[in-house]
Amino acid sequence: MINKDSLTHHISQQFNAELEEVRSHLLAMGGLVEKQVNDAVTALIEADSGLAQQVREIDDQINQMETNIDEECLRILARRQPAASDLRLIISISKSVIDLERIGDEASKIAKRAIELSENGEAPRGYVEVRHIGDQVRKMVQEALDAFARFDADLALSVAQYDKTVDREYKTALRELVTYMMEDPRAIGRVLSIIWVLRSLERIGDHARNIAELVIYLVRGTDVRHMGLARMQEEVKGGKAE
Amino acid sequence: MINKDSLTHHISQQFNAELEEVRSHLLAMGGLVEKQVNDAVTALIEADSGLAQQVREIDDQINQMETNIDEECLRILARRQPAASDLRLIISISKSVIDLERIGDEASKIAKRAIELSENGEAPRGYVEVRHIGDQVRKMVQEALDAFARFDADLALSVAQYDKTVDREYKTALRELVTYMMEDPRAIGRVLSIIWVLRSLERIGDHARNIAELVIYLVRGTDVRHMGLARMQEEVKGGKAE
Repeated sequence: MINKDSLTHHISQQFNAELEEVRSHLLAMGGLVEKQVNDAVTALIEADSGLAQQVREIDDQINQMETNIDEECLRILARRQPAASDLRLIISISKSVIDLERIGDEASKIAKRAIELSENGEAPRGYVEVRHIGDQVRKMVQEALDAFARFDADLALSVAQYDKTVDREYKTALRELVTYMMEDPRAIGRVLSIIWVLRSLERIGDHARNIAELVIYLVRGTDVRHMGLARMQEEVKGGKAE
Repeated sequence: MINKDSLTHHISQQFNAELEEVRSHLLAMGGLVEKQVNDAVTALIEADSGLAQQVREIDDQINQMETNIDEECLRILARRQPAASDLRLIISISKSVIDLERIGDEASKIAKRAIELSENGEAPRGYVEVRHIGDQVRKMVQEALDAFARFDADLALSVAQYDKTVDREYKTALRELVTYMMEDPRAIGRVLSIIWVLRSLERIGDHARNIAELVIYLVRGTDVRHMGLARMQEEVKGGKAE
């Protein structure tokens, strides 16, 4: 099993420093993305279009972070020719960055809906669900990043497992909102805005799960995507490692 | 500028063969994914739940292809330590494969809606739009893959540009369907199924655009994501290359 120590024992101090740096850039990007999710949900619930606008502006910064981290990964691949766990680290980082960027996109879309709703008048329903599912997925993002920071496959597993709960609650919320639309068709447009927001939140959960799966790959050396939660749990709890 | 020749002039014949092979696996996966999009849309329009079921079953095969290609890329990175355009090729492949897998997911979601609608009775509207936008995004996927096969940055640029058209038509279709829902609230559930399908198609367009941007990166050496279409066009038409 790899851990922080095995990662920081290279002959080249410079190589160590580069690996640590790109990892810390990923975590910094993750922290900002997590804040974006939080701010977007708050902007929606409090009808704060100023905050929503700010979320949309910060999205550029996140995109720039993605580009920078990609370049760092490429430079390390080209110059250092990493192998084994170092290579897995670089691969995991360069894939996680894609998910983080897309979480940022979804936060930006939520902010757009917040602006819309603050202009068109608030939706008659759905705010409780947005707050609740929003908290859940923000926590998933946070824990996926913590798992990355600490090479914690168990925490990553629990993030991946939690995604099922979010999906279930998303579906329940959706059903209720559809029923409501039928009762009050005049509100369809605004309720649909809330549905898009819930959809974005559900996707944020998917992306957090992807990152968690990459952490398991990084730590255990096994590609656990598409394998189902039961087998994933076996992989993690079984403790097989390279 | 790189082209097929520069890619096939390595000292090691074996290395050439490996690069060619992983590229051909990507294109094969792309071909299957494109067929999935087509079949999913057909299943929906013709209310053919057998075909829809088939699309859902084939999704596992696509996931397996993703895993295999990922492993090939990793093996090449570890053993061959590729540089310059070879490294860009491996990076582009390993990122494109993520987009292809997600296009496959969206096709599978469309197939799920097709089954739903064949059970609950068809939607009163939206099939024309699904057919139309479905054709557009299927063509985007096909051309993005052609661009990859031929290292054709111009074709890739046109795919990226076309995404704007799809987004516009998606929004128009959405507005019409929302209006329809207000007129006939009893149809909300079924119309919403069509809206989810359109949403999936729009995302397929986004993924095709991502692949196209990776082709431009591969051929021109510039990361054109997040740069906007005008600057992207300059990059491609300007002909800067490494």
